[in-house]
Amino acid sequence: MRMVDLILKKRNKEELSKEEINYIINGYTKGEIPDYQVSALLMAIYFNGMTNEERLNLTLAMLKSGEEIDLSKIKGVKCDKHSTGGVGDKTSLVVAPLAAACGVKMAKMSGRGLGHTGGTLDKLESIPGCSISIESDEFFNQVNKIGLAIIGQTANITPADKLLYSLRDVTGTVESIPLISSSIMSKKLASGADNIVLDVKVGDGAFMKNVEQASELANAMVNIGNLANRKTTAVLTDMNEPLGCAVGNSLEVIEAIETLKGNGPADFVELCIYFVTEILLVCGICNTETEAKEKVLEKIANGEGLEKLSLMIEAQHGNKEVINDYSLFDKASEIIEVKYLGKKPCYIQKVEALTIGEAAMMLGAGRETKEQDVDFAVGIVLNKKIGDLVNPNDTLAYVHSNGKNTNVAVEKVYEAYSFSDTLVEKQSKIIKVIR
Amino acid sequence: MRMVDLILKKRNKEELSKEEINYIINGYTKGEIPDYQVSALLMAIYFNGMTNEERLNLTLAMLKSGEEIDLSKIKGVKCDKHSTGGVGDKTSLVVAPLAAACGVKMAKMSGRGLGHTGGTLDKLESIPGCSISIESDEFFNQVNKIGLAIIGQTANITPADKLLYSLRDVTGTVESIPLISSSIMSKKLASGADNIVLDVKVGDGAFMKNVEQASELANAMVNIGNLANRKTTAVLTDMNEPLGCAVGNSLEVIEAIETLKGNGPADFVELCIYFVTEILLVCGICNTETEAKEKVLEKIANGEGLEKLSLMIEAQHGNKEVINDYSLFDKASEIIEVKYLGKKPCYIQKVEALTIGEAAMMLGAGRETKEQDVDFAVGIVLNKKIGDLVNPNDTLAYVHSNGKNTNVAVEKVYEAYSFSDTLVEKQSKIIKVIR
Repeated sequence: MRMVDLILKKRNKEELSKEEINYIINGYTKGEIPDYQVSALLMAIYFNGMTNEERLNLTLAMLKSGEEIDLSKIKGVKCDKHSTGGVGDKTSLVVAPLAAACGVKMAKMSGRGLGHTGGTLDKLESIPGCSISIESDEFFNQVNKIGLAIIGQTANITPADKLLYSLRDVTGTVESIPLISSSIMSKKLASGADNIVLDVKVGDGAFMKNVEQASELANAMVNIGNLANRKTTAVLTDMNEPLGCAVGNSLEVIEAIETLKGNGPADFVELCIYFVTEILLVCGICNTETEAKEKVLEKIANGEGLEKLSLMIEAQHGNKEVINDYSLFDKASEIIEVKYLGKKPCYIQKVEALTIGEAAMMLGAGRETKEQDVDFAVGIVLNKKIGDLVNPNDTLAYVHSNGKNTNVAVEKVYEAYSFSDTLVEKQSKIIKVIR
Repeated sequence: MRMVDLILKKRNKEELSKEEINYIINGYTKGEIPDYQVSALLMAIYFNGMTNEERLNLTLAMLKSGEEIDLSKIKGVKCDKHSTGGVGDKTSLVVAPLAAACGVKMAKMSGRGLGHTGGTLDKLESIPGCSISIESDEFFNQVNKIGLAIIGQTANITPADKLLYSLRDVTGTVESIPLISSSIMSKKLASGADNIVLDVKVGDGAFMKNVEQASELANAMVNIGNLANRKTTAVLTDMNEPLGCAVGNSLEVIEAIETLKGNGPADFVELCIYFVTEILLVCGICNTETEAKEKVLEKIANGEGLEKLSLMIEAQHGNKEVINDYSLFDKASEIIEVKYLGKKPCYIQKVEALTIGEAAMMLGAGRETKEQDVDFAVGIVLNKKIGDLVNPNDTLAYVHSNGKNTNVAVEKVYEAYSFSDTLVEKQSKIIKVIR
């Protein structure tokens, strides 16, 4: 087999066989096939796409390039939840405890990504003492005992995906549905769960800018998951304004706790309930949506979801007192009110998620390079969201700053808002589900 | 400027500016832009093409990556003739002397290529003593004095093209009209002629398999040439059967000499006359096709074309006696007749150029790698061509062999022929001209 012939095959819109895809991924991982041939192939894939069969084979080849997590030591139905990432996305911190309270085993291993705010791991680390570096045996015990754990990925999973991703990043081949879907799914399969629920974010603050692209990606991932014998569901959710009100690490943890106490912002509450419901259905814990939804609401009302989060924090060596005393979190040195400067009352038409994310990044809440430190305390709390009425001098948002880029961030937050003279309806964050 | 942004631009069908193309070619030639980014760009160009402006800028950037030949020391109208290459293509050996006899300065520097038979340089070297390594001053003097020289390219012209070509070869990005046309034209522009006549071969024995592709390539090259202020013409010619009868180095030189003596095979004679005519028109030596054609016929009839070839051989230290004594050439150790095995008379329907070329290659007439030696003596002489009548036991062709792969070559030559019960018309080799 010669790599150049495989490039030509894909360039000429022919299908690559399983053996051919394995040859490419093995050869590339071993350093036997050079970057310049792989990048030409990636560009040909960008233009000509891949069949479902090819996507599955690419995913499996990347999966087999590294370690696979064996969750067989955990008893019960195991489920993984993954989000393509958005601004203010603290969903896992609410969904995992609630699903665990309903009897699902949530064994979640996350990677650290780049982003406008930290990832789930950074959010957990904003809880004093909380560790995300847990040995596998301890991890299995924890999930068996309390039903959930969220820890950092330490195993060498999907090294081929890491290599391909770095190459795609510098060769203009990131935005390809077959490549994105097989990259995400290879990591999900390697994490070992039987059931996978995916949150595909759509909008200016997400990687997928429109519903059409996002549907394509969601379909692609569900297809791969099901072909690989994992029950997989994807939910398209709106990311045109930040999710909930808090954007920033400890600020988001506090909002997650409030949500488990029943005091969450409406859009975030709706989304969390929807995801737990979906998990219960996928895992076969409930048979109907009504039954599942009732169960979730009960776990919020009776505090069992909150209790699971508390147990997890404790198991991971964190101070569980944060649940009742938010003053235990790092605090920003100043909180600036961003006020509405108009002279007439109006409605919020838009709060650009991307701009809010950029403002949070400037304050130090996220990282552009792997080496950067995250400031847990800083961020933005929205006081007004799409559809809200504002009067002159009302506070739109609060900027929590430790003095880094404060003024620019405040300006950016104001810029993120647009206003309307007429009523703007609040929309559901759930766009559609793909099973 | 970042290379990844330029890849994205081309991937998204936007036009690259002159500065951007220069940045890419300079950076790549200096080793500052890695192969893997360039190969991704090449694949994007394969899919999205290039505008006329981009093609010109790419050609000029490659031209400027190396030395340019300054032909100003040569007085008069200078013309270069280039062929995209085919089986039995000894056209330059006839066209250059005839054009020189008509007053055009033919200063031709050729590169050595790979191919089924050697290139023009190998053919010249099959003449005892004839050298293609001539110093530039000697070269300029020779062209000023006798009107022609065909020598090897020694200057470091278009190094960027060499790098790009090697990369294209292993990344499935050879077959791209913008890339092929700018590669050829950068070399032609670097060679310094004011006027350029291109022979674009079409058919199974050529790189361009059909008239549509070949027209696209010819148009692209003519466009680039004219935009770069060189008068450029391309002629599409048929390469579905070998050109003339001889295929092999010294065999082709003998056929060229015979053609200059007025005894060439009809199809080859037609093609040579057409090209010299075109050169005379492009160079402004004649005003009408009729006038030009008469002049060419006269130079064959009065032997002035042959005399020019003789003078060139002498100037390049070769034995000009070969013109009258073919026994001075290397001879093959055996000549095998390939006979028609059918029981009934028939007409030749096809003589597959590619198959004849492969047979010649097997005998040792060409090279697959740069290091291989060429056997000047071996090759094939066709006795029957498309449209000819054959009777049982007639000789179709002669295989000149030095014992290497003789039987397989003989079989291949027979396979190249197909036969018809009904009359097959001979077609002109000239398909169309693009000015």
